[in-house]
Parts: sequence; C-alpha cells; structure tokens
Amino acid sequence: MQLATHRMYSGKVVRLDVDTVRFPDGSTGELELIRHPGAAAVIPCASDPGGPDPTILMIRQFRYATGGDLWEIPAGTLAPGEAPEACARRELLEEAGVTAERVERLTSIWTTPGFTDELIHLFWATGLTVGAAAREPDEFIEVVPRPLSQVWSGIRDGEIRDAKTVAAILYMAGFVLAK
Amino acid sequence: MQLATHRMYSGKVVRLDVDTVRFPDGSTGELELIRHPGAAAVIPCASDPGGPDPTILMIRQFRYATGGDLWEIPAGTLAPGEAPEACARRELLEEAGVTAERVERLTSIWTTPGFTDELIHLFWATGLTVGAAAREPDEFIEVVPRPLSQVWSGIRDGEIRDAKTVAAILYMAGFVLAK
Repeated sequence: MQLATHRMYSGKVVRLDVDTVRFPDGSTGELELIRHPGAAAVIPCASDPGGPDPTILMIRQFRYATGGDLWEIPAGTLAPGEAPEACARRELLEEAGVTAERVERLTSIWTTPGFTDELIHLFWATGLTVGAAAREPDEFIEVVPRPLSQVWSGIRDGEIRDAKTVAAILYMAGFVLAK
Repeated sequence: MQLATHRMYSGKVVRLDVDTVRFPDGSTGELELIRHPGAAAVIPCASDPGGPDPTILMIRQFRYATGGDLWEIPAGTLAPGEAPEACARRELLEEAGVTAERVERLTSIWTTPGFTDELIHLFWATGLTVGAAAREPDEFIEVVPRPLSQVWSGIRDGEIRDAKTVAAILYMAGFVLAK
C-alpha cells in the first residue's frame, strides 16, 4: 500500500518516484519505481499465418541501451487515453508502414516488475496492407521480412533477445498457430 | 555513441543517467537510461524434466509495481563481479530454498531496451536438493510447486504475466523439452 510518493525525476520517457510503502507484513519501506503508461507490441504476419512458414515483418532498431541494433517487433508507449489495440495499430503503421485487417491480443507482460510498472500488451496482426511509415526523429528502424522458421531459430540461438519479441513470438507459436 | 553522461539519480536499485548520444545518422540527442548490472532468472525443475509433466517450483511474490502478487521464477540482480550462473544458483537457494546439480543456460533477454540496459540471463535447473531459503527483508515470497502443464496454461490464460518467466518457460518448452 502506498503511504507517500515523491517524484525524483521527470524526463522525456522516464518518470522516477520514490514511494513509501506498507508491505504485506505491516512493515514500511521505500521503493524506487519508474512509472510507465504501458505499451503495446505487435507481430506483423505478412502472409497467411496458417500457411507453412508465414512471413514476419521484423524490425531492426538501433537501441543505445544495448550498444547496437536489436531485432524487435513494432512497439511503442501508449499515448494518453489510448487503448492498447489502437496503440498497436499506430505503431504498426509508424514503424512497419502497414495497416492490418485484424489485430488480435495474445497476452500482456510486466517487463521488469522489480523497478517499473510497465505492462506491455502483445498482439498479432494479419491482413496487412502497405501504408506510409512515419518514424520519430530518434528512431532508426529497418523493416526486414523474415520467415517465422528463421525468427524461431533466431530466438533459439540468441540472435533475437528482446524480451517482448521473444515472449510474443513464442506465445503465438505455442498457443495460436499450434491450435 | 556516448558523448557525455550525467547521473540524475542514484538509489538502492535504480541509477538514472541522461546521456548525450550521437545517433547512427550523425545527429545528436539526449537519452534517459536506467543503468542496471544485469540479472539472472532460473526455472527450478523439481522432478525429471524428461518425465510426463515435470514439477516447477514457482514463486509467488509481492510486487508493489504491479499492485499485487506476481507468479515468477526465482531471479535477482547480479552482485558486483558475479557470473550469471552463480547468481542463478544464489537466487535458487535464497528464494526457492534449493541447490541444483545442474544449472543450464537458456538465453538472455533485454527486458525493456527503450529505457534500461538490463539484460536477464535465463537458466533452468535440475537435480534439486532442499537447502535453507534466505530472503531479503523486503521480499515476500511463497514457493509453490506447480506442474508444467499448469504453468503452460497459466501463461496461455494470462495468469502468469512476468516477462522473464513467460520467456523462460516458453523457451524451455519450445527448445529444450521439445528436443
């Protein structure tokens, strides 16, 4: 239970609070927390997902935090009042340059609950049509169509290491396509 | 490329920097970054993983950031100079109260590369022996043995939503046990 909260930093992306908290045993303490509005990520399936080896529009993105490029799926932070599916559709267009007939929810995951309340909602999209990408000035993104079998082995071999991407692809493969 | 870095906050868990960065196109900008020493997480398999439905020692942990309890696998932050496998073994004992004959690496994942350099190394452990758990004062953890089939359906149904746990279990099921 929150007893008090103090904003220590508020920037472009990160808002850092130190909260005074009552723990389940009745004791109190202070916890640092990055407050996040939540996010959405979406697997763009560019060919029939029921086919033998569907094509995924993967994103290769410069990530300063990881020291280089990272393989990801399109994703971004929820705008104020934005529903997760709307965010997924917006990021699909902005980052991968496509619109989708169908965007379906997979699950939602807490990225790193030890220090942030960020929850990412995972989706997959089918029935894609090419639109016009519109990236942020500090986004360096390349769209690379890859067969699911190659994405699968990339996860196995550690080439693909972004948490939301690993979770979304393995979830889709295990629970949706395996049906 | 890093041009400058300024520490904006340094706390118990979180260190927040604002870095001046040169982007791939030569432009410069500022990025907020939570610097993290990295972490390890480990799936404790309490029965023969080759058996029909192995038992996983799941952790039910109070997470203030998520507003309640979260299903997880044992995990924690790397101590200074600590190797990921040593961290996994330490957290196995501290959080689940067990030692393991074998701890094997699955993969490593960037938890949320938009604002932190946290990399979690994922392992699975077999040949468990009961030891003595030793939790931190602000850790509220219950160990709950659950059959893998139930963990699997818990991920499918959104009962289990911790990113490292979802990624580790789906990875183990898809690439290790499926062999």
